[in-house]
Amino acid sequence: MAAAARLFRGAVRGPSTLVLARALSSAPPGPAGRGGRRAALAAAGALGGLGLALGLWRRQTALAASREDEEDKELRQRFMAPPVSGLRELRRRRRELRSRMELLIMETQAEVCRALAALDPGASFSVDTWERKEGGGGISCVLQDGEVFEKAGVNVSVVSGLLSEEAARQMRSRGKSLKAKDGKLPFCAMGVSSVIHPKNPHVPTMHFNYRYFEIEEADGTKQWWFGGGTDLTPTYLNEEDAVHFHKTLKEACDKHDLKLYPKYKKWCDDYFYIKHRGERRGIGGIFFDDVDSPSKEEVFQFVKSCAKAVVPCYIPIVKKHRHDSFTPEEKLWQQLRRGRYVEFNLVYDRGTKFGLLTPGSRIESILMSLPLTARWEYMHTPPESSKEAEILEVLRNPKDWVH
Amino acid sequence: MAAAARLFRGAVRGPSTLVLARALSSAPPGPAGRGGRRAALAAAGALGGLGLALGLWRRQTALAASREDEEDKELRQRFMAPPVSGLRELRRRRRELRSRMELLIMETQAEVCRALAALDPGASFSVDTWERKEGGGGISCVLQDGEVFEKAGVNVSVVSGLLSEEAARQMRSRGKSLKAKDGKLPFCAMGVSSVIHPKNPHVPTMHFNYRYFEIEEADGTKQWWFGGGTDLTPTYLNEEDAVHFHKTLKEACDKHDLKLYPKYKKWCDDYFYIKHRGERRGIGGIFFDDVDSPSKEEVFQFVKSCAKAVVPCYIPIVKKHRHDSFTPEEKLWQQLRRGRYVEFNLVYDRGTKFGLLTPGSRIESILMSLPLTARWEYMHTPPESSKEAEILEVLRNPKDWVH
Repeated sequence: MAAAARLFRGAVRGPSTLVLARALSSAPPGPAGRGGRRAALAAAGALGGLGLALGLWRRQTALAASREDEEDKELRQRFMAPPVSGLRELRRRRRELRSRMELLIMETQAEVCRALAALDPGASFSVDTWERKEGGGGISCVLQDGEVFEKAGVNVSVVSGLLSEEAARQMRSRGKSLKAKDGKLPFCAMGVSSVIHPKNPHVPTMHFNYRYFEIEEADGTKQWWFGGGTDLTPTYLNEEDAVHFHKTLKEACDKHDLKLYPKYKKWCDDYFYIKHRGERRGIGGIFFDDVDSPSKEEVFQFVKSCAKAVVPCYIPIVKKHRHDSFTPEEKLWQQLRRGRYVEFNLVYDRGTKFGLLTPGSRIESILMSLPLTARWEYMHTPPESSKEAEILEVLRNPKDWVH
Repeated sequence: MAAAARLFRGAVRGPSTLVLARALSSAPPGPAGRGGRRAALAAAGALGGLGLALGLWRRQTALAASREDEEDKELRQRFMAPPVSGLRELRRRRRELRSRMELLIMETQAEVCRALAALDPGASFSVDTWERKEGGGGISCVLQDGEVFEKAGVNVSVVSGLLSEEAARQMRSRGKSLKAKDGKLPFCAMGVSSVIHPKNPHVPTMHFNYRYFEIEEADGTKQWWFGGGTDLTPTYLNEEDAVHFHKTLKEACDKHDLKLYPKYKKWCDDYFYIKHRGERRGIGGIFFDDVDSPSKEEVFQFVKSCAKAVVPCYIPIVKKHRHDSFTPEEKLWQQLRRGRYVEFNLVYDRGTKFGLLTPGSRIESILMSLPLTARWEYMHTPPESSKEAEILEVLRNPKDWVH
């Protein structure tokens, strides 16, 4: 209810306001409007006159519509673009978890974009809304070649349809047993996903992703699960930053269960492992997947805490270092680390692989995670006891940053 | 015989001359030496005196050894480093195809490195010999940050051991049915592999790879096959270059069978397909895999013709354009195309995937195929009718360059 209520206090802005306007004009009234319409029809019956009834209905509808206009105006100011599922649909099923999750990912997108834009005043986010012909769509917000950020992308996607055999196989290999009907699995997947690559080598790259998955089996039962995580990839190690980042995540986890942070911290170190290099992509954070207990509501609340922790995790680190001076050698090391980032994302990352395999997925949104520039040098090895060797050591042997 | 004889006329140079010297000191004499030894023993028998016979044998051996010294000297000048299998072993089994193939890939490596180095006089190839603890090793020659070449790598590898379950599965998915004993498949794989990324955006990137595979099944029967190909990845389309490149390849193929070029040209267009982009990596060339007919000898001769065509295919194009002027915009487009090169190699390329999965493989040699620098811009689309759109059109709809 809380999330649904937010929708009606929210507002949408972005380049696709027309789409929103269209969605609203053909939408039946929401809770207030629906109540209004029902009241009007009852009154019409009592009066016995069709003309009068229609007149009253029109007035009530107009009242409800003006209330909705206000709400939509506010919504325009709150989100980056209209939600993929449309306001009508989200109003209709406002108690369902997938509606509340869609609102959460929309809010997270807007919160993060605004916090980043505030730190890079000369740059702005391009906002693209896109549709997937197989069902659903998304909103991609990308800031490129700014003063502070080389490339910052925050994507929302809400897609549905039938899971391809290949995608289903990939899921099964993660332990999910799914009984398909005629080889087809209706699914609904949504998430917010973001990678922020700053220019300054002393500001780390940050990634987060929170997602929800529903799948319908042959017998009509629904499997659902959440996944997500937030992790940091510094070019150089700054212990204070690492502690702040992990501590903020731990606090978000600890509100729900003290076991979560240690478990998901380890999962993160294991997941972001570039096997062929024997290194992690970064200094970790939290990561979880296939989480479907203790209950839908409890996991959702946990995911919400994590999503709300993104800005306090990362923004203070960007503020602290965005004006740090750096040498050409430090920039070069950053570029080499960006190369490793590309290696992880293209060779191992499940989300990227799943995206590349899903027919009709939006490649530009999936690959927005890749940095603007990257570098590969043959046999590059930093000197012993250098700052470059220091971060490598932590990438090879992950540390506990908070206890 | 021809290939084995070349060994004794050849010479090795590079950082590992000591290894060669060791191999030679314990090596039995080659054809000439063996002939010499046989003649000496016959003479000793006729004379009936062991002392005399030994004296004569020693003189003959000394003669053979000095002839071998000469041969080794020449060999040092011919190859980039001592062959992985060692001269003793290659001499012993000089009639076997795997020995002749190893010499062919060594010769090809040296030929290409010398041709490239001659065009980039300020730069030089670093030569690394490496061993794989599971069996075999390789020689990696890399030129980095030259005047003409951003990164040019020419690798030889000759590895053997037991095929991992995962690698075997990947092979089976390509139609090879392999009967393993206790889940283990002894194998021997060798090849020469090269990627040349020039600095000037008007000089295309070139890749070639010729390889031979032997695998021993549970019942002791050996499966063998060849694979390979040469292909071009220009940043901008130059029709004359495209025709020259394909024509040279076609001539190499036509010497063996007129059906080969059209078949392997199409295979190349199909193989280097970046599915998620709907584009090929480049303008193709030839590609083939799993070729095990009409006979081992005939396929080897075909592979030899292809390997010999690498220099005439590519070097004239480098010579023609290495001093072309270019704009920053052209350099940027090259960097974006390099990004696509990385995408293909990390997401689709079988050789790279196989390498990353093979335990103990040398990652630096496998990933030397990645460019020094690459770029990813969100939603980059070249203007209609631009030179950038022209090459994209050919990458989306491959053309026939020769008939």
